[in-house]
Amino acid sequence: MDKAVILLSGGMDSATLLHYVVRNLGVARVHALSFRYGQKHQRELDAAAWQARAAGAAEHRVVDLGFFGPLIAGGSALTDASLAVPDLADLGAAERWQPPTYVPNRNMVLLALAAAYAEAQGITDVFYGAQAQDRYGYWDCSREFLDNLNAVLALNRKQVIVIHAPFLAMRKTDELRLGLELGVDYAHTWTCYRGEAAPCGTCPSCAERAAAFAEAGVTDPLTA
Amino acid sequence: MDKAVILLSGGMDSATLLHYVVRNLGVARVHALSFRYGQKHQRELDAAAWQARAAGAAEHRVVDLGFFGPLIAGGSALTDASLAVPDLADLGAAERWQPPTYVPNRNMVLLALAAAYAEAQGITDVFYGAQAQDRYGYWDCSREFLDNLNAVLALNRKQVIVIHAPFLAMRKTDELRLGLELGVDYAHTWTCYRGEAAPCGTCPSCAERAAAFAEAGVTDPLTA
Repeated sequence: MDKAVILLSGGMDSATLLHYVVRNLGVARVHALSFRYGQKHQRELDAAAWQARAAGAAEHRVVDLGFFGPLIAGGSALTDASLAVPDLADLGAAERWQPPTYVPNRNMVLLALAAAYAEAQGITDVFYGAQAQDRYGYWDCSREFLDNLNAVLALNRKQVIVIHAPFLAMRKTDELRLGLELGVDYAHTWTCYRGEAAPCGTCPSCAERAAAFAEAGVTDPLTA
Repeated sequence: MDKAVILLSGGMDSATLLHYVVRNLGVARVHALSFRYGQKHQRELDAAAWQARAAGAAEHRVVDLGFFGPLIAGGSALTDASLAVPDLADLGAAERWQPPTYVPNRNMVLLALAAAYAEAQGITDVFYGAQAQDRYGYWDCSREFLDNLNAVLALNRKQVIVIHAPFLAMRKTDELRLGLELGVDYAHTWTCYRGEAAPCGTCPSCAERAAAFAEAGVTDPLTA
């Protein structure tokens, strides 16, 4: 594989994936794709740009989906100003199974766009950074989601696109260990859903990040 | 079913579908969704607005996907100014199987967005106007495409969305006959890919429309 498209949010998962695709898989030309889909902040997009440069991506596009937040108004705490991002500690079991930070059908939208872009560019492979812990909260980070979506794309008569999620069976701590081996600078990733000056430390995303660093026995450079 | 989302392009297929969903299926609140995805003209969007009013749609949204044309630059004669729309008569058998007017992964993108919108609105059913003849040229108008996409959406833990394409096994002529019974005014639909003052009459879309009207023994009010 000499070319690939990668969904690059600027979080830990996609930053690690980017360096993995370049270094371990040896993909020469990586086209990184980031989206403004109505997130409440730009911090993760700045991190995405930094990581794309650091990994030597051939291209980094930021696509503005400004319409998406209004289209799904009321649908997610990540895109709706009237809905608060909860703390992980406050989520009950039922909510963890489908948390308020879930964005309606976002991953299918972003992967469909990435596949369209790849097809127009003559690229057959698309990567995204779902990892094992995501599937507890997000149906669109599961193996079943990936397999079924690939079954749709396999029908394309012009160019079959394959979506890969190599961290799908990997826990976040193991992914972090892999990233540290690869020299990923996690000071230039952004995880917090709240997007204030410093990470809040308590939203579901911050809590999972903190747990991964603690388990790996490493200090998080972003909060050090 | 008392609410539904429908993809309304303003062409014959989706206009007929809209009236069918309202009248024959008796859906009380229809949310029509149209997209600017980089088409070379606005004619079909005007027709979409007219049909939404005529059918008494509860809502008609036009979503601007201005980024999409540049994202798939070079990918389709429908969205790229440098690529000419061919005449149907000039297409060889191989091209008819996957014509230059195919837009990379467009239907998955639009249906994924429609599903996201439906989910945020608490609506479970989405309609689109694929019909039997489309599948010869477009993989994303086939039964396999629909079934596989629904298999993905069935995994949603919060709300399963079902995509319906009731004309999928219907030829365009039969769909036209159904629309005429329903009183659809085809003067307010737009089919031509070229989007000049009058329909060109020779692009693949015009040629198929003309054949359907001829077979039904009816004069097309748009070209009369």
